[in-house]
Parts: sequence; structure tokens; C-alpha cells
Amino acid sequence: VFKQESKSFAMNMFMGKIKTDQVFPYPSALTEEQEQFLREMIGPVSKFFEEVNNPTENDLLEKVEDRTMEGLKEMGAFGLQVPTELGGLGLSNSQYARLVEIVGMHDLGVGITLGAHQSIGFKGILLIGNQKQKEKYLPKLASGEHIAAFCLTEPSSGSDAASIKTTAVPSSCGKHYVLNGSKLWISNGGLAEIFTVFAKTPVKDEATGEVKDKISAFIVERAFGGVTQEAQSPFSEPWHASRCCSGILPHQTETPGLCPRDRLQGFGGGVSSVMRLKLIRMRSGEPACLQSRPDGFVSSEVDHAANRTQFGDKIHTYGAIQEKLAQMAVLQYVTESMAYMISANMDMGASEFQIEAAISKIFASEAAWTVTDECIQVMGGMGFMKDAGVERVMRDLRIFRIFEGTNDILRLFVALTGIQNAGNQLKGLQKTLKNPIGNYRLLKEEIVKRMRRSVGLSTGLSLKEVVHPDLAESGELTVKVIEQFGGSVEKLLRKHGKKIIDKQFQLKRVADSAIDLYAMITVLSRASRSLSQGSPSAQHEKMLCQTWCLEVRKTHFSSTCQRLRGGQRITSRAHLSASWLQGGGPSGPGPLRS
Amino acid sequence: VFKQESKSFAMNMFMGKIKTDQVFPYPSALTEEQEQFLREMIGPVSKFFEEVNNPTENDLLEKVEDRTMEGLKEMGAFGLQVPTELGGLGLSNSQYARLVEIVGMHDLGVGITLGAHQSIGFKGILLIGNQKQKEKYLPKLASGEHIAAFCLTEPSSGSDAASIKTTAVPSSCGKHYVLNGSKLWISNGGLAEIFTVFAKTPVKDEATGEVKDKISAFIVERAFGGVTQEAQSPFSEPWHASRCCSGILPHQTETPGLCPRDRLQGFGGGVSSVMRLKLIRMRSGEPACLQSRPDGFVSSEVDHAANRTQFGDKIHTYGAIQEKLAQMAVLQYVTESMAYMISANMDMGASEFQIEAAISKIFASEAAWTVTDECIQVMGGMGFMKDAGVERVMRDLRIFRIFEGTNDILRLFVALTGIQNAGNQLKGLQKTLKNPIGNYRLLKEEIVKRMRRSVGLSTGLSLKEVVHPDLAESGELTVKVIEQFGGSVEKLLRKHGKKIIDKQFQLKRVADSAIDLYAMITVLSRASRSLSQGSPSAQHEKMLCQTWCLEVRKTHFSSTCQRLRGGQRITSRAHLSASWLQGGGPSGPGPLRS
Repeated sequence: VFKQESKSFAMNMFMGKIKTDQVFPYPSALTEEQEQFLREMIGPVSKFFEEVNNPTENDLLEKVEDRTMEGLKEMGAFGLQVPTELGGLGLSNSQYARLVEIVGMHDLGVGITLGAHQSIGFKGILLIGNQKQKEKYLPKLASGEHIAAFCLTEPSSGSDAASIKTTAVPSSCGKHYVLNGSKLWISNGGLAEIFTVFAKTPVKDEATGEVKDKISAFIVERAFGGVTQEAQSPFSEPWHASRCCSGILPHQTETPGLCPRDRLQGFGGGVSSVMRLKLIRMRSGEPACLQSRPDGFVSSEVDHAANRTQFGDKIHTYGAIQEKLAQMAVLQYVTESMAYMISANMDMGASEFQIEAAISKIFASEAAWTVTDECIQVMGGMGFMKDAGVERVMRDLRIFRIFEGTNDILRLFVALTGIQNAGNQLKGLQKTLKNPIGNYRLLKEEIVKRMRRSVGLSTGLSLKEVVHPDLAESGELTVKVIEQFGGSVEKLLRKHGKKIIDKQFQLKRVADSAIDLYAMITVLSRASRSLSQGSPSAQHEKMLCQTWCLEVRKTHFSSTCQRLRGGQRITSRAHLSASWLQGGGPSGPGPLRS
Repeated sequence: VFKQESKSFAMNMFMGKIKTDQVFPYPSALTEEQEQFLREMIGPVSKFFEEVNNPTENDLLEKVEDRTMEGLKEMGAFGLQVPTELGGLGLSNSQYARLVEIVGMHDLGVGITLGAHQSIGFKGILLIGNQKQKEKYLPKLASGEHIAAFCLTEPSSGSDAASIKTTAVPSSCGKHYVLNGSKLWISNGGLAEIFTVFAKTPVKDEATGEVKDKISAFIVERAFGGVTQEAQSPFSEPWHASRCCSGILPHQTETPGLCPRDRLQGFGGGVSSVMRLKLIRMRSGEPACLQSRPDGFVSSEVDHAANRTQFGDKIHTYGAIQEKLAQMAVLQYVTESMAYMISANMDMGASEFQIEAAISKIFASEAAWTVTDECIQVMGGMGFMKDAGVERVMRDLRIFRIFEGTNDILRLFVALTGIQNAGNQLKGLQKTLKNPIGNYRLLKEEIVKRMRRSVGLSTGLSLKEVVHPDLAESGELTVKVIEQFGGSVEKLLRKHGKKIIDKQFQLKRVADSAIDLYAMITVLSRASRSLSQGSPSAQHEKMLCQTWCLEVRKTHFSSTCQRLRGGQRITSRAHLSASWLQGGGPSGPGPLRS
């Protein structure tokens, strides 16, 4: 009954359990060779973004400038994870994350163009295409000769992907499909040659012989004909540089080029395959792209703003400003720690990180938004000048909380996935009760744990073995919150049973807690590694980690007095702010930047 | 010692005291006649904004369209509070708030243009100008023939207004002033004929004969000459419709037209006069302008979005969406309740509402931001379409948290003003201790209060007399939080003494609590009035009030379990969301909309 243990930390914390496999020690999956290659890439890519790409110009032109596009193609930026034998750079997820971080730091518009192309546009071909499809499409996609786009959303189908209305019906001659429907909000839609289009298609159940409409993905070439396109959408400025299309319409007419061979095998499995593609994107691309926001600012704007003199002192000497800078630093540290933990997990072959990936996308997009918003506040009126560039970033950022799964839907996903698993375990326990003798040991452990928790005693969980001694207190705090969380989830399950699925108020709170907790464990792990290795940023990271853990405690067990007192948190914030401005950056060197 | 009692609720709550004069019963200052006039105005003004003004067009043109400007002038919108004998409409603060609410609901760009003109541009002339100045300028300003602008900020002087460098030195002939300096971010700067310009000028102390530079305000006409103007600033889109100027430069040369008679009497008192002008603006204009945000949305966008079907149900049936709608409704109710309470206080001749005004500006600008942000989230991808208009509102709104005193500076103002007063009272108490016999009664009361508080007993404070019985629980909660707050402030004062002025981390927390508390009292008061009057929206308002009070409790005394449980709050949120969508609007009819 208890055998199906998940290796996912997040999955386990819903049961009040701690599973450290994927989180301790802080994982790094780069081989010597990969690290070397990355080092060689970083310089030129950074230089390219500093000297060639012009985000303000892209924004004004409402597209990425031609010379930037050409330069990116030359660097191989359009095929970062395509295998080298098919013309790509063959990067691992960790390498990819590190490079995308540079892109995001300089220009989110370019980030969206590159991401729409390879993180979703042709990701289906890369991951589940057959050899023929790969050989046919990937080389030109990797070189950037062809641009890819991802067509899922429809006017009446956004978060509810299963409700799409586009159909792909075999033609009367049986040789090709007739696509019929219209799609919406297709990043790169105006540029793309290759589209991954989701449509409902009749699928025969081999066992029963029954034919049902299921969602499949098709590779559609613009050259097939029949694909019409509305004028570039009257989108908000946030989309200035991303060439988003408001409607792409596979016509009512037959699409002679679209043959059964263009269907992506492995799809047709309904919504879960769509969700899978979305998660694939999220888990490395987006958070990595967003993690560098404060870094991108500090070098110029925040630094400048914080050195502005008002009331006779530089404003960074004021607590009100220090608190903002400290918050920005902590948020970046968490975002970055999550992004690299998950990409390393992926590179090491982990298969269970769906909750973690969703948490990482939510956290990254909200942290980046908060950081940018506070950045504007620190800069005051200057934050509003076009020249400063921050207002452009704000416009670019807003969509990240909406696309690739709105954060609201993802919160439900996080809560329900975790709760479902916990529910199964609970059912297992109930079965065990019916055969108490045969499962005596397990049962005893569970009962003792529950009893101790119910009277407020420690359940015996511990992170002592893995957390660095200097962070013992934060580790204990984390254990305490996990125990509480597990207990609360169990209570909810006992109270609502299957009906929990409709209790969205509660699910949102469960998700918020899960996010806080996973954030705690990632920074605990990363800071512990730095302390063990004696890295120069270790003390700084220790403080970032402690600040975050206390922040979570504040949210979970606060009182007015604590709020007003502040204590340790206040001291560390002043330190964090100071060390940022002394050139250390908001969160010290990144995991892959030593 | 205890005689100097303030009538301000906010001032008193810093001492853990409750003074209900200005807050109970919920004040209304409209005479029969004023109410009648307002009713007659509302229809045509609303119609004008629905049929004539085009916010999208203003946004694109980067100025308010000419025909809108002409229409506004015809309606008298440029002289709302100018006395009728000088050509204005002579509105009271409450009437003004109600009309500005309509403007803000439809177009914040127009709101800024009108506000920059009369809320700050010529407010100095209106309030402290002499009769000659009033007669000379106000008629043309009221008719809109002349537009006014306010020139305070300089490149190196934003929040720290005392540090301005612009000087006004008497010319050698003694007949006029020579202005020298440059100003920044002047709303209406491109249109204005009349400027209120702040400059340092030598002022002789009559008592000592000493000459010191003090800040004075001058009425500067563009016609004086010497005023140059940089090109319209490369501002962010948020400023599309407001014609903001990045530099207005009274030249090095003499300004022959600027005579001593153009100095605004009553100024020259340094920064406090500047702060006063700012507060004048805030206390009625801005919050009123922002209070209607959710109303502005619900009629079209949110309503539409919430009726979108996903996963087989309209999305407003989902808890995640209901929670957002409920939050938006509560935030609007609080904002609106504050704005009308303060404008009524002003109309009734109150003189102490500086803390309340600052709180209201902070709350209104942050609430409107949150509401708009959540509105975009509810709308998903649609929120990003230019046509929907919400992204324009988001751009328009951002500056409200920065201008007219950044919210960060205003938080310090709120905390320090309250604490300073509490500190004086504390000193008074200490003096009393030296003469215990003469002040026995007072002393006893204080000692008993403190002792009871220190052991967690009620200090005997109560709101029972004024709060409607149906809201008794919320009333008790409010008393409890006020007691805690007073105790925390006293502890801070005892610990830090005068040094509290540098403890910005703590000051921010004090301000946050003060904001929460003042919000509690305003909704308690307004909902109590509605319940007493048996108004149709009374039950809805009761729920809004209860939800807010529980929200504050959550912030002040929360635990994970409470967070996950939610209980009463969850039920009320579903109700609030439902009744909004059933056509009741987010917070029922406004105080002046019965």
C-alpha cells in the first residue's frame, strides 16, 4: 500500500513527509565538458545582447530587429536543445536555463520570440516526433531558417484546453486531413513557417472499436496553403516585440498538404498531452527567462536610483528602500534556486517534477512582476521614463502570469495533484486499518506521527542530516511548517473527500502554502551547499535563505507584535540591501555562474 | 497635560484611544440643495463620458481630444470648486468627489488633466491667494480658457521637496523677481498658461532681522516670457493623454512680469506649505478619482470575462474567480468609504485629517492597482487586447502610487505624525507621574488601561454605542486591534525614543497597521449607517465590512490552519462575488448615489 513512493519533494510534503532525493544536496548536472561549453557561450551571448540587440528599438518596431534575428540565428539560438546531428547545439536543460537567463535579463521580447519557437513551437517534434519528422523539420528550425509557432488557444478555449473546437477530419479520399477552426494569440504567428496545431480528430479505440474525438497535434506548414492569418493583433504594448497573431485560420477547405504522417505520434491522448507540452515549456524556459530580472536592473537603474540623494542622504540608506531591495534580492534568489534545481532534476533523469515545475512558473512570474513593480517605485518618477526601460519590462512581464497556464489554473493544478496523491495514501492507510496485523509496523509509525502532530509535538521529521548546521534554525522551521501543512491537507481531505476538487478557496490556500514550502526547501538546499563548499557568497546566501524562511513563518504564524517588531528580519534586510549595492548583485553569483 | 486632545480618529488610535467624533455616524455633509444640484449634474456628466469622450483616442493622440476639452469647459469641469461669483461651480468637497469619481471611472487621462489643473495647478490661488489674485486669475481658469499646472519637482528633488534649487531673487531694481531653475514632470505643462512655481527666496525674519532662503510659491504666467519648455517628455505610455512636460525652465534672465504681487501670500513657510498643498490635493481628488475602478470594469469587461465558459461552467462559478471578484469589491468599498468620509469631514470644517488623507491616498492608489491587475487576470488573454481598455487603465494607474507623495514617503508621514503625537502624550504622562496627587484620576485611568492591556484584558474601550448591533463582532475585533496597535506603538516609543524617526522598517509596519485600522473604522461606520437606515444594500455592505475586518485579523493574527480553513470569509466571498454579478455592482450604491 505504501510502496508507490514518489521521489518528488513536493508530492511528499502534501502528506507531511520529507523526501530529500531530488532536493538535497542541491543538484548540479553539468559535466566538465558541458560546463566548459557553457563558459565559452556566455561571453559572446552577453556581448551580443549588450552591443547588437536593442530592446527599445524592438519595442518601437513591434518586432525583433532583423539584424538581431540574423545574429541570433548565427549563434545557434534557434536550436539550443536540438541534437547536434540535426543542426542544433544539443544543450542540456541546465545549459539551456543558463543561456535563457541572459536573454531574459536583456530583452523579454526576444525571450518570447525564442521561447515560442523552441520551448513550445517545435518542442512536440523534438520530444515525440518520429525520426522522419525530426529529420525533415528540425534542421531548418534549428538554424532559424524556419520559425515555429504553437497553436492551441481558441476564442472560447483558453485554460480549458480540452474544449477546443478545431477539428481535423480525414478527407473523403483518406489521404489527408481537413482542418477547420480558428486559433488565437499565437506568438510568432506572423513569422512562422511551421505550426504545431491542436485539433480534435476521430480516434478509434482498438479495444472496443468505438470512435471518439480526441485531441491530436499536427505539424502544419504554412506552405500547405489554406492557412490564413488576420492582421497582427491590436495587442497591448506588452507584445510590442513578439509578433503575436490574433487569428490563424486553417480554412474550411481541404488542406492537401496535411497528411496522416503529419500527426504527431504519441498525441491524441487528450488534454494531458497538452498539459505535458505546457509543462515542458514551463519547467525550464520561463522561470529561467525571468530569474534574472533584478540582476538586469541593478547594473543600471536601481543602482542609479538607490544612489540618488534625497533628504540629505542617499536613498539606499533608508529602511524603506532597503526593505524593497532586500525583498527583490530574496525573490530572485528563490526564483533562481528553483529554476536550476528543476533543470538539474530533469537532466538527471527525474520524471516527477510536475508540481515543482508549476510552482516554479508561478513563483518566477509573480516574483519578476513584484521586483519590477518595486523597481519602478524605487526609481520614482524616473521609473516612468521610456529611456529607463523599466516600464517596457513591466509591459513585457504582465503576460507571463497569464500564458502557458494562468497562475490561477496552475495553483489549482498544484493543489489538486498533491492532494490527490495524499488522498490515495490516506485511502491506503484506511485499508491498512482493516488488516492491522499484517501492516503493523507501518500502521504504528503513522499513528504515532498523527498523534504527536495532533498534540503539537514534533513528528520526528528532520532535515538535520542534510541542512548545513549554520542553517539549523531555518531547517527546523521548515520541518515545522511541513508538519503543519501535511496535517492541514489531511484535515481538508477528511472533511471534504472528493468534493475538495470544488473548494477553490481552500485549494488556492493549499497551493500558496505549497509554493512557500518548496521555496523554503530550495533555498535551504542551495545555501547549505554554498556553506559546505565555503563559497565566497555563502554568508550572503545564508542570510537570503534565513530571510525567506522567516518571511514564510511570518505569513504562517504572524501577530501584530511580530509584524511591528521585525527583529532579525530587519537586520538581515539592511545587510542584504547593502551587500547588493556593494556590487555583490542581489543574490550573489548564480548556481551556474561560479 | 491631557487637554490637547485631537479629534482625528487616526491620531488617537496611535495612543490606543478611540475618538469617534469624525467617524461616527458616517458623515454626510450635503445640504438638500447641494444634493439636488449634484443629481442634476450626474446624468449629463456620465452621458458626456459615455458618448463624447473617447479614452482610446485620447491615449493614441497622447492628449485629450479637442472636442472633449471643449465639452468639459462648457460643463464647467475646469472650475468645479471655484466660487460661483468668480465663474466656477462652487462645489463642496463631497460634490467634487462624486463628480471626479465619474471622471476616474471613464478616463484617468482626463482625470489627470482636470486634477493637475484644479487640484494642484491653481489650488494655491484658490485657497491662499489674495482677493486681487483670485479676481485676476480664477475666472479664466474656471472657464478653462487658461489651463494651470503645478511646478515643484526638479531633477534632484522629488520626495524631498525642501531641497529644490530653483531660486527667485529680487531684481536689482527691486520691482520683480529673477527666477532661475528647471522643473520636471509637470502635468499639463504643455498646455498651461498659469503655473504655480515653487522657488527659494530670501525672507527676512521680522523678529531677528536675519535673512534666510525659504520656499515660496509664485504665480507665473507663460505670457511673462522667459519660460521655456522642453519637448514633450519621452514618458511611458501611462502618460499618453496627460500632456506631461519634462522640463520647464524659467530662464537665467530676469522675468520682468514676475512681481512681488505674484507671490502667494501665506507661503514662504517652507516645506510644510508644500506638503499642505499636496495633501489638499490628495484628500479629495485622487482617492475619489480612483474609487470607481471596479465599477468602471464590471459594467463591461469583468462581467464579460466572468460569464466566459471554461471547463463546462461560467468562470464566475469558480472559487478562484469569486475570490478575486470579492477582493475587488471589498477594496472598492473601503476606498469609497474613506474618500467620502474625508470629503465630508472637510465640508464639515474639520481641520485634523492629515493622517487620514494620506492613508486614503495610499489605499486608493494601491487598491485600484490591485483591482486592475486582478481584472486583467480574470480576463486572461483578453485583458491584453487594446480594445478591452484595461491595459490602458493599468498604464494610467501606475503613476498614482508615485506622484503627489510616493506611497513610501506617505507611509513614513502617517507613522511619524501619529507616533509624534503619541510621544507627546507619553511625555505628558511621564510628567504627570511627578505630580501623582494632582493628576490622580488621569493617572489611575492610564495605569489601569496599561495593566489590563499588558495581561491581555480589554482596556475598556468600546464601539458598542456607535456600531450597529449586527456588526458587533467586527466592532469588537476593531477595538482589539486598536488596543494592540496602541500598545505596540508605545513599546516602540519606549524602546527607540526619538530614534524611531530612523527606524523605517518599523515605521512602514506601523503605517500598514494604521491603514488597516482606519479602513476598518470607515467601513464599520458606513455599513452601520446603512443597517440603521435599513438601506437596500445594507446586508451586502455588512458582508463587505465583515470581510474586511476578518481580512485584517488574518493579517494581524493568522496561522496556517486559519489560512487553510478560511471559514466565514470563504462563504462571504462567494456571496459578494455573486451579488456583484447579479447587478449590484461591486460594493452597492456609493454613499452619494442613493
